[in-house]
Amino acid sequence: MDVIKVSGSSRTSAVAGAIAGVFREHKRAEVQAIGAGAVNQAVKALVLARGYLREDGYDVICAPEFADVEIEGKVRTAIKLVVELRGAAGPPPESPPELTPTENAAP
Amino acid sequence: MDVIKVSGSSRTSAVAGAIAGVFREHKRAEVQAIGAGAVNQAVKALVLARGYLREDGYDVICAPEFADVEIEGKVRTAIKLVVELRGAAGPPPESPPELTPTENAAP
Repeated sequence: MDVIKVSGSSRTSAVAGAIAGVFREHKRAEVQAIGAGAVNQAVKALVLARGYLREDGYDVICAPEFADVEIEGKVRTAIKLVVELRGAAGPPPESPPELTPTENAAP
Repeated sequence: MDVIKVSGSSRTSAVAGAIAGVFREHKRAEVQAIGAGAVNQAVKALVLARGYLREDGYDVICAPEFADVEIEGKVRTAIKLVVELRGAAGPPPESPPELTPTENAAP
């Protein structure tokens, strides 16, 4: 699945169409933006894409994350918006669940 | 529940703390931002807040929307980020579900 890369000059309707298209195929999409202008376009596109996908019966949400990406040899911090179906299972927790004693555990 | 209003000069850590605090109390938070700088700060704060809340065992996601807000007599389009627990039921669909005939429906 390709990451959808958004810049500050990306057209929101084009990005929204891309998000909806990738989501319909994979039931997930990832949108990457670096800088305020790009993040703004990405979020606006996501609002539009939510509307398109709602018409198809999909209620999508997003989980934003930081992502380090290398551009022309420099590491920059991007915002990654992971678009998923509402109610889809997320990633596993980073720490294992706390162990609880079982009935037949040794005292 | 108060809407958390973010500007381009808001500190992300302060906004993140506000999001986490409101979420812990209400199991929901709403963040409002107008303009690219504000949306960027809001999304970065949300990434931080997701980290704080993950430590409390909450996996939160966001549903972005447009919202018309009136500021000094002018209507402006804000981005509203609705922060919810992953898996929480969303709003009801805009159109009612299609009715299906029941077994004992009249012909």
